[in-house]
Amino acid sequence: MKVGAVENVEVAKDTVAPRKGFKRGLSILDFIFRIIAAIATAGSALAMGTAKQTLPFATQFVRFRARFSDLPTFVFFVITNSIICAYLVLSLILSFYNIIRSVAVKSRILLAFLDTVMLGLLTSAASAAAAIVYLAHYGNPNANWFAICRQYGYFCSRISGSVVGSFLAVVLFMLLILMSAVAVSWH
Amino acid sequence: MKVGAVENVEVAKDTVAPRKGFKRGLSILDFIFRIIAAIATAGSALAMGTAKQTLPFATQFVRFRARFSDLPTFVFFVITNSIICAYLVLSLILSFYNIIRSVAVKSRILLAFLDTVMLGLLTSAASAAAAIVYLAHYGNPNANWFAICRQYGYFCSRISGSVVGSFLAVVLFMLLILMSAVAVSWH
Repeated sequence: MKVGAVENVEVAKDTVAPRKGFKRGLSILDFIFRIIAAIATAGSALAMGTAKQTLPFATQFVRFRARFSDLPTFVFFVITNSIICAYLVLSLILSFYNIIRSVAVKSRILLAFLDTVMLGLLTSAASAAAAIVYLAHYGNPNANWFAICRQYGYFCSRISGSVVGSFLAVVLFMLLILMSAVAVSWH
Repeated sequence: MKVGAVENVEVAKDTVAPRKGFKRGLSILDFIFRIIAAIATAGSALAMGTAKQTLPFATQFVRFRARFSDLPTFVFFVITNSIICAYLVLSLILSFYNIIRSVAVKSRILLAFLDTVMLGLLTSAASAAAAIVYLAHYGNPNANWFAICRQYGYFCSRISGSVVGSFLAVVLFMLLILMSAVAVSWH
């Protein structure tokens, strides 16, 4: 009977093998995507956080200077991107655990849940920043808001690139959540 | 043998009954939340879409007037809220189907997937609009953007309320997705 039991386990392993390999591949892709997303959010936070420009002319009392902290939305953007970068680096541990133990389900569900929360946070920060960047580029004649990019060209190119990096991370988060869903459903 | 089979089904029905009642309760709550969210998004779209204010003074050439279509972000906001309201009304059919057939799983997963897409869209529209509303309220002295709310007070109260309604719908969407996840996992 003991021998029979062992044989049964062997057979089960053989049947499960390709599925297990597929899940391991997904886990490795998950790990790589997390690293790329962490780099994208870190880059966004840095590009936005270090963006400043001082115009080459000044009056006696005023120096014309643009920094990200002039606009509260950008402060929110930098903080959110930093939080999400930290989360992504920490989540690498759990993601690595999923590569080793490819049958784990609860850790995948936990990650998918946290990913969804972070996706919401990142989407809101990126959209708000995009709305302000659009305003900086084109201004709004109806509200008498001036397009500051006409003067602060370098500053604007930095903040635009920063928002793009953040939206790249949003797309990666969506893929991560979908991959988690697929891996759990193949359980 | 036939009698035995029928008895088995009876026993299974008895065991599943409380779980089925719980799922039916969730489905009914799902239906109610969808109606509330549809009203919230419809109200947001209407409040924003009809918000306009003309100041009681005018020069010979200029009439001072604020409308939602003056700001592209608000146009995006109105369109998104309308789309999501239409989606919610349509999704009531599927939600009603879930109440009747409480064992359905695929229709729940489909709904949860569509809900997540709509949640992303709504979050981005609401955040972008919130960033602009904040700017309208407080302006930004660094960028020389004037707080238009000092003049257009009524217009501003309308657009602020509109954003609040949209964020209420965001919270309801999150609850809907969580409830779908619970209902599917209790399968």
